[in-house]
Amino acid sequence: MADTEELLHQEDVQQRLREVQDLLSRHRLVENLVQRQEMNKHDIVENLVHKQHTVELSRKLADMHPADVAFVLEALPLEDRLIVWDLIEADRQGEVLLEVSDAVRETLIRSMEPNELVAAAETLDADELADLAPDLPQEVMQDVYLALDTEEREQLRAAMSYPEDSVGALMDFEMVTVREDVTLEVVLRYLRRFDELPDHTDQLFVIDREEHLQGVLPFNLLLVNDPEIEVSTIMQTDMMALHPDDKADAAAQAFERYDLVSAPVVDPENRLVGRVTVNAVMDFIREDAESDMLAQAGLKEEEDIFASVWSSVKNRWAWLAINLVTAFIASRVIGAFESSIEKLAALAALMPIVAGIGGNSGNQTITMIVRAIALGQVEQDAARKLFRKEIGVAGLNGLIWGGLLGVIVWLLYGSVKLGLVMTSAMTLNLVLAATVGVMIPMTMARLGRDPAVGASVLITAVTDSGGFFIFLGLASLLLL
Amino acid sequence: MADTEELLHQEDVQQRLREVQDLLSRHRLVENLVQRQEMNKHDIVENLVHKQHTVELSRKLADMHPADVAFVLEALPLEDRLIVWDLIEADRQGEVLLEVSDAVRETLIRSMEPNELVAAAETLDADELADLAPDLPQEVMQDVYLALDTEEREQLRAAMSYPEDSVGALMDFEMVTVREDVTLEVVLRYLRRFDELPDHTDQLFVIDREEHLQGVLPFNLLLVNDPEIEVSTIMQTDMMALHPDDKADAAAQAFERYDLVSAPVVDPENRLVGRVTVNAVMDFIREDAESDMLAQAGLKEEEDIFASVWSSVKNRWAWLAINLVTAFIASRVIGAFESSIEKLAALAALMPIVAGIGGNSGNQTITMIVRAIALGQVEQDAARKLFRKEIGVAGLNGLIWGGLLGVIVWLLYGSVKLGLVMTSAMTLNLVLAATVGVMIPMTMARLGRDPAVGASVLITAVTDSGGFFIFLGLASLLLL
Repeated sequence: MADTEELLHQEDVQQRLREVQDLLSRHRLVENLVQRQEMNKHDIVENLVHKQHTVELSRKLADMHPADVAFVLEALPLEDRLIVWDLIEADRQGEVLLEVSDAVRETLIRSMEPNELVAAAETLDADELADLAPDLPQEVMQDVYLALDTEEREQLRAAMSYPEDSVGALMDFEMVTVREDVTLEVVLRYLRRFDELPDHTDQLFVIDREEHLQGVLPFNLLLVNDPEIEVSTIMQTDMMALHPDDKADAAAQAFERYDLVSAPVVDPENRLVGRVTVNAVMDFIREDAESDMLAQAGLKEEEDIFASVWSSVKNRWAWLAINLVTAFIASRVIGAFESSIEKLAALAALMPIVAGIGGNSGNQTITMIVRAIALGQVEQDAARKLFRKEIGVAGLNGLIWGGLLGVIVWLLYGSVKLGLVMTSAMTLNLVLAATVGVMIPMTMARLGRDPAVGASVLITAVTDSGGFFIFLGLASLLLL
Repeated sequence: MADTEELLHQEDVQQRLREVQDLLSRHRLVENLVQRQEMNKHDIVENLVHKQHTVELSRKLADMHPADVAFVLEALPLEDRLIVWDLIEADRQGEVLLEVSDAVRETLIRSMEPNELVAAAETLDADELADLAPDLPQEVMQDVYLALDTEEREQLRAAMSYPEDSVGALMDFEMVTVREDVTLEVVLRYLRRFDELPDHTDQLFVIDREEHLQGVLPFNLLLVNDPEIEVSTIMQTDMMALHPDDKADAAAQAFERYDLVSAPVVDPENRLVGRVTVNAVMDFIREDAESDMLAQAGLKEEEDIFASVWSSVKNRWAWLAINLVTAFIASRVIGAFESSIEKLAALAALMPIVAGIGGNSGNQTITMIVRAIALGQVEQDAARKLFRKEIGVAGLNGLIWGGLLGVIVWLLYGSVKLGLVMTSAMTLNLVLAATVGVMIPMTMARLGRDPAVGASVLITAVTDSGGFFIFLGLASLLLL
């Protein structure tokens, strides 16, 4: 699709952001003057300057690609964000809403009247509407739905019926189809009747009368072959066809492995129902990687960086609560050894080292195994090999680092025995970390759950409590 | 490009893997029999069975896409991996080497003779060779280089001269160019002279006699317009042109923002030197996300899951050493308060809670800020706003969770004062975590360094030592 908006390099987008910020701050300056009543509200000068800024801002925004407008909105504090939002043409607001993050989308939708929302939503395709629908008020969706034609309604219903991580949620409905018994010349003439082809059209889908997918005709073949040839002669029949219920992740892997630009989606009867394009896949990959990263740090979802303190607190709450519980358990383990610590306070100083190194080592193991599972490389019979390797690594690390620390402790506290306890506790906790580090993701995967979620909390809980218990227990047995 | 290999769904690839594993285990069974001398090495039966397996394996591998062969190789232990590797046709080994991970590539290259390597490398394009070059022995690269023609040599030199995270490293040289003063009809006839077009050709590049980029002609426009029209009439001139020195990350963001399939790369004089395609960008994004994840867990690089214990130990070493140092510092902080702990061993049990929650909260802050910086959303004047928000969140969390813990400590140890120390220490350490959590990534970014690398280690070091110091210090002052 030929966009009339400028395509910008990242630094130019940032430049735009600065210009918008500059205009906004001048805008605010005027507003402040008015508020302080140093200027009359109906003062002509005020009005002129004010209008000038507004016009300039609108013009700047109109030239920008919706994705760049979204970028600017994300980077602005709430108040400024809403000023800018009101300056964006109504028929572009829908596209921009698709591009912003969930958190920012919420702030924008909250600021809009139902009729504005209907107007914005009506500019979108069925698959785009389906992405937006969960964030829109019920009554707005009803109005939008009523304005759709029968085919679009069915598409919207279909798109909304698939779970977020399925191919159905990634697909769109903008496929160009041809019949197999026509010549390439006919196909070329047919294409010339379009004003434009859908984005990412790199192949045509060949279907029969009942919409069954017969094959695909890549432009690469269409363009290099003799126009007299029939479609059926050169179409590819061994293409990658997806199903709406396939996992989005499986589709993403297929796009990566085979470098696809688009792929047909068919129902169980092999009827063409949609297509998936590489841009939808790329968005999915990026979002997936990001939510993994956020989940690992215990953030429920991406956070509007200018969110209120209260909503940020809620976003981070669950994780802190879980950590408080695990930390409390570890604390009780230590509590059980308070009499040992009273006798030898050095134990209190040394125990966090044992626990901490165990946690780090366990997290390394988990990260490696989670990655291998995600790539589908860990078969059941590999488990024993992995266990053996990880325990070998842990044992070796324990002897090396634990040995080093043992010597330092010996020199520091003048007690060979304390040094030996340190070395053995380190080694044992590292072995514990390796064992649990392999077990947690393997078990999660076998139970059909995401091996990454919560794995880091769990391993740290085990290596903390375990480390304290091993170290203090050994010390109580051997030293006191 | 029309591949003759099958395109498979993820579960089918895994099925292939199991079949290969099955064939290999039967292969090994025979070998074991031979070794145990229960069968004569030249026994005809052995030879027959053996050959059958080998033939079946080769046939299976020949049908598979190089990316799927790579997948199978990654999932096999070293010994099996090399058996399979030897069965892959020499002219496909180059492509497979491109698809496997660095760690596995190393094991494969190490098993090959120089002349085999030269044969494998000679099947590759210049940009692919450049990716492989760092892993190939010097003498092999020399032989390969000598076999190239002048244009390819220059391309290889160019591709190798750019740093790994630049556009130059992502680009290939397979662009199709046309002149602006010809009609679409001429373009269509020109394209029909190709046997096939390069992968991901979604547009032609329009250049003048000196190879200056004039515009691009998307297939979408070529196909819908009248063949009598001249290229110059419909070509797009506001396309996104990249420079070889641009950051790969900036290019990736442009591909995502504008949903591109390919983009021209031009030198400072606007001469077309190559192109970047969406599949190169997608690989880059995936690798980038992965190396972030590995770095966060302190793994130097992706690890061959069947790597030897020793090479795994080395991969995880640096991080453990750093952690040992920070844990040791924290331990010394505690050591300074040993006399307090001797008097009140409860302090030893409670201090890890203060340190742990601080670390978690600090990591949440860092993750959020790093993400905002990566998206380019954090301008200097936003820093103060962010500080205020994060400190607000930390203070609120400290009062809520610290208050709760204070009450629990009071009930558990019967000391109101100890409870108050707990609450204040928690709050102070959370505020410390927030302050440092904003400062570290902002400072790194201002110094032009990657804000994610090492941030997590640093914050944990600060919140551990800081938490112990704050809690034990307050307790010593107020309780003893």
